Amino acid sequence: MAAWSCSLPFRSGRLEKVTWMSRSTPTWTARPLCRSAAMKAPSSRAYSLSFSFVARTNTCGELRSAHVGQKVTLYGWIQYQRQGLFLVLRDFQGLTQIIIPQDEACSHVKKLLSNAPVESVVRVTGIVSLRPPGQENPKMPTGDIEVKVETAEILNSCRKLPFEIKDFIKKSEALRMQYRYLDLRSSQLQYNLRLRSQIVMRMREYLCNLHGFVDVETPTLFKRTPGGAKEFLVPSREAGKFYSLPQSPQQFKQLLMVGGLDRYFQVARCYRDEGSRPDRQPEFTQIDIEMSFVDQGGIQRLIEGLLQYSWPEERGPITTPFPSVTYEEALADYGTDKPDTRFDMKIVDISDFSRSLGIRFVQNALSYPHGTVKAICIPQGMRYLKNKDIESLKEAARSQFNQEIVDIICRPDGSLKSLLTKFLGQEQQSELVQALKMQVDDVVLLAAGEHKQVCSALGSLRVESADLLEAAGLVLRDPTAFHFLWVVDFPLFLPKEENPTELESAHHPFTAPHPSDMTLLYSDPTKVRSQHYDLVLNGNEVGGGSIRIHNAELQRFVLEKVLKEDSEVLSHLLDALEFGAPPHGGIALGLDRLISLIIGAPSIRDVIAFPKSFRGRDLMGSAPDYVTPEELESYHIQVSWPVAEAEAKKN
Amino acid sequence: MAAWSCSLPFRSGRLEKVTWMSRSTPTWTARPLCRSAAMKAPSSRAYSLSFSFVARTNTCGELRSAHVGQKVTLYGWIQYQRQGLFLVLRDFQGLTQIIIPQDEACSHVKKLLSNAPVESVVRVTGIVSLRPPGQENPKMPTGDIEVKVETAEILNSCRKLPFEIKDFIKKSEALRMQYRYLDLRSSQLQYNLRLRSQIVMRMREYLCNLHGFVDVETPTLFKRTPGGAKEFLVPSREAGKFYSLPQSPQQFKQLLMVGGLDRYFQVARCYRDEGSRPDRQPEFTQIDIEMSFVDQGGIQRLIEGLLQYSWPEERGPITTPFPSVTYEEALADYGTDKPDTRFDMKIVDISDFSRSLGIRFVQNALSYPHGTVKAICIPQGMRYLKNKDIESLKEAARSQFNQEIVDIICRPDGSLKSLLTKFLGQEQQSELVQALKMQVDDVVLLAAGEHKQVCSALGSLRVESADLLEAAGLVLRDPTAFHFLWVVDFPLFLPKEENPTELESAHHPFTAPHPSDMTLLYSDPTKVRSQHYDLVLNGNEVGGGSIRIHNAELQRFVLEKVLKEDSEVLSHLLDALEFGAPPHGGIALGLDRLISLIIGAPSIRDVIAFPKSFRGRDLMGSAPDYVTPEELESYHIQVSWPVAEAEAKKN
Repeated sequence: MAAWSCSLPFRSGRLEKVTWMSRSTPTWTARPLCRSAAMKAPSSRAYSLSFSFVARTNTCGELRSAHVGQKVTLYGWIQYQRQGLFLVLRDFQGLTQIIIPQDEACSHVKKLLSNAPVESVVRVTGIVSLRPPGQENPKMPTGDIEVKVETAEILNSCRKLPFEIKDFIKKSEALRMQYRYLDLRSSQLQYNLRLRSQIVMRMREYLCNLHGFVDVETPTLFKRTPGGAKEFLVPSREAGKFYSLPQSPQQFKQLLMVGGLDRYFQVARCYRDEGSRPDRQPEFTQIDIEMSFVDQGGIQRLIEGLLQYSWPEERGPITTPFPSVTYEEALADYGTDKPDTRFDMKIVDISDFSRSLGIRFVQNALSYPHGTVKAICIPQGMRYLKNKDIESLKEAARSQFNQEIVDIICRPDGSLKSLLTKFLGQEQQSELVQALKMQVDDVVLLAAGEHKQVCSALGSLRVESADLLEAAGLVLRDPTAFHFLWVVDFPLFLPKEENPTELESAHHPFTAPHPSDMTLLYSDPTKVRSQHYDLVLNGNEVGGGSIRIHNAELQRFVLEKVLKEDSEVLSHLLDALEFGAPPHGGIALGLDRLISLIIGAPSIRDVIAFPKSFRGRDLMGSAPDYVTPEELESYHIQVSWPVAEAEAKKN
Repeated sequence: MAAWSCSLPFRSGRLEKVTWMSRSTPTWTARPLCRSAAMKAPSSRAYSLSFSFVARTNTCGELRSAHVGQKVTLYGWIQYQRQGLFLVLRDFQGLTQIIIPQDEACSHVKKLLSNAPVESVVRVTGIVSLRPPGQENPKMPTGDIEVKVETAEILNSCRKLPFEIKDFIKKSEALRMQYRYLDLRSSQLQYNLRLRSQIVMRMREYLCNLHGFVDVETPTLFKRTPGGAKEFLVPSREAGKFYSLPQSPQQFKQLLMVGGLDRYFQVARCYRDEGSRPDRQPEFTQIDIEMSFVDQGGIQRLIEGLLQYSWPEERGPITTPFPSVTYEEALADYGTDKPDTRFDMKIVDISDFSRSLGIRFVQNALSYPHGTVKAICIPQGMRYLKNKDIESLKEAARSQFNQEIVDIICRPDGSLKSLLTKFLGQEQQSELVQALKMQVDDVVLLAAGEHKQVCSALGSLRVESADLLEAAGLVLRDPTAFHFLWVVDFPLFLPKEENPTELESAHHPFTAPHPSDMTLLYSDPTKVRSQHYDLVLNGNEVGGGSIRIHNAELQRFVLEKVLKEDSEVLSHLLDALEFGAPPHGGIALGLDRLISLIIGAPSIRDVIAFPKSFRGRDLMGSAPDYVTPEELESYHIQVSWPVAEAEAKKN
């Protein structure tokens, strides 16, 4: 039986007192990580008046020995019922043991409660009593008491369940999604949704009440942005004209700054049609922020304050300011722009050391521009990894990055085992051991080649080998640790994948160039760094933003001359910049991802009430669905059936 | 020049202090109605840290004589500049007078500021000084001081404006919409959006922090609901399958109750495709609420508390509980289900009195079932209405309601003037005067016919004649008054307009029948009252909700037997009700309408940052817009061009 906690004991009828108490002393009580079996509901001020406006006197999580003798009315679901003797009643706040009366006078109550199926919803009224000595349940917050029923009512009966509402019962995700309303009764999902609500509320308090931000709702029916291939379309009643569901309120928030709003935020619904992608959702939520007259540091301090203020106490404190690395540093040290800094295993550059070695593939690699030799050292790799693990790591580098990897093992006697050893003298071997800080049983993965490719490959192997070490029992990453990191100084433009002679924005075309690189913009735009910043948490990108271009001429140059895009579709934004647009910048935090990391949920689906499957389907209501041709008429569209389906329809 | 107010004076660097002060003592300072020329920004805790994270020391609305001698840095827009001597700087919080230095050493600063066009955005740093005696401006909160510039910077210049950013300049709405980002700089829109943000924040505090509601985000990509002709479609990548943008989270909030969430709220974006409708928006926002184990009274008390808690102090207090009338009473007294109770002029039933009169059309009307004779009395109608006004009222009743109206005028000598007088004896005339409480110069409009038609016609004339009286100078409705009213006991079903032998839901099929009328459901469903309730403010519907059906069998009966609908599309909801769904109910408040009424804005477009035109177009970014056939391919749709357009395209 899951143990639930409750908030501070409180009495009814003290609205005014509780009101102000809860306003001035919001508390986040300490909690274990919620993935543990002993799930607890997040307790807080949010529960103080859960009995207001309804007929219950208490919730199922709050009765204690102090309540003994009181007559209470509880509403909840039958979690468990045993032999007509007692049942366990559950609501969102916890569990209470209910004693079914056995005397003849109450036989109808006994019959009612004994016959009600599990998960039926009932009202019970009764007296709070101490449990008989020895029958207390210290694991249950209400474990000292039980309620002796006087009257009861079955409010709604439950038919046979597709799965049991118990945390330890494993069920397939498809089944959970189909019966999402039943899965929502689990203590884990109750906790997740309530914690999410509370964190967002704290964020709002910080932004709106403490720092003068204005919550502005922006349209979701807008028009297609250039290159907006991932935007959902919405046909309008004007033939051939479509709205588009925007991927973010980017244009609107910039226009709000032009409009003098000064400080904007929104918990914004965003849309992205990426087809089937694991752990992505076609609609998602971001904490969207924009400020005028701000620089990069200003936004960073704001976000650090925001996260610190809204951080659940039960997750331990986070320290600010967050560390910051440049994009180049992140790539060189971790092989990625979203490094997981909870563990070390940094990439080590041994190009200089390698130059003196007479090894052909090494010399060959170093002879190219950006040629490099790098390595990562897997601590205790010999003890925790199997040979096939190392082979699979090497194969992954080959298939995903076209990168050959050489492994070096440090034997128990300190000697090295590798293809390379025959090319290395004793002194060179110990230099290598020193450079890589190798210890007995460590495994080194070495790569030679082009800088970016080598870094990316080793960065990927770093995370994969950490996963393998942990699967084998070595704790490398503290599961309770939260490592925030700013990554800054990204390139402003990247070569297009399909045609590397053309450039595209690394993030979006409104990102301002780094002030030191302004002249490069006109001479060598590939070298220009941007004023973009990413916020990374435990190796996941949880936010990104930038200082924006506020000068119309510069914006036009970037769009037309560098990106070669048709600026006409953005004419309203270019116009706006000409009317005294203030310098401004902002950021967006991915709320679903952030909450799932805070909670330690395996998927963002666990922090969304009604998520879609990875194919973008709602398995409960079966969306999307067919509509009749008549329904399409007023939107002047018709379905272009793929040939096979059209044929099938004909027959 | 518009006068702006500011929040309490405060000093920088006292984050912690201000933090807690602002949390425990939120204040709404008294304000005049914002439609007055002397617009003021809503001042509140929201401004306490508007300088945080940026380089300004103060905002443009807060400097007072207490700041004299301080060196300050302000950022803002040039509202006005005169002869290189001074300028007025504006930001979201107010205006400050800036003195341009005239000495030779600062000639570059003078040149910079004198040449900057109006609405350019600048930084100025200077010393706060008292204005010379006699030059103070008591209408301006910062009118005691001026800032003597030392250094200045033009951050962005402004090109020629399409209209001036001054409140007294009238501009066409189309132009305002096209340059919405400029219109947003007006003090009126700044006020509207900030007040909206603050009211919503207070609502969240009330629901989330005080009453344990959980803010849950529900999907906007769902599937079409039965009869959802007004739902926008979103094509998916699966051929022929479409998502639908829901008109409200109705199904989801009920499923959350089945899921044991207990108390849900959401500031929910909703969509409704109604084509061209004045003062409607294709996307709009509602405060969406649902509770388990609640009855009608519980929801009503919750909403009264919510509005009282979030009500801006500057609008005066509102008293609770709100009065309540039944649908039948509202119809009989006001001829509408959303009565404006700010003024009297109730409909008076004179059927009994009329029965004894020998007037043919009266007798004829009374001989039919539901036949009735009713009247409204327009106070001082003879003095404020012209003959043509009375004729136009009668014509409106004829054309809109097919209802003949007879007018009766009370002459200065107390005698009546009417077509009817010849049928009335002296005693009957004075009985009529008494029944209608007629006074000298009053005009009575009398109608005989079927109850509902007569009521509707007179209800419409009641509001129209009130408008005419007010246009002529008689103040009938206090513009600062807020009259909330609950309307309850609506019919559950209505005859379909196109086929009156069939029934449709008066609101939606999930509304629970009135408990007293349960048996009628099976015998005469047209007579069943519902547990639906509307909230009306000053004659506008601002909210509606109901206790829902939580019994699957009853829900199925209503859908299949009464409404004759295919219940298959709602199978997930019907299923859910079988798994121990709790009794539940809820409400939704129309946020845009509510805020516009609080502010006294003529249109909901005035409380939305980026509204669409009444044709559903965004005039700034020109949405909706054409997309290429290639862009439609991945969604398996093509445009069915109307014949004329298709022909034109060919040529």
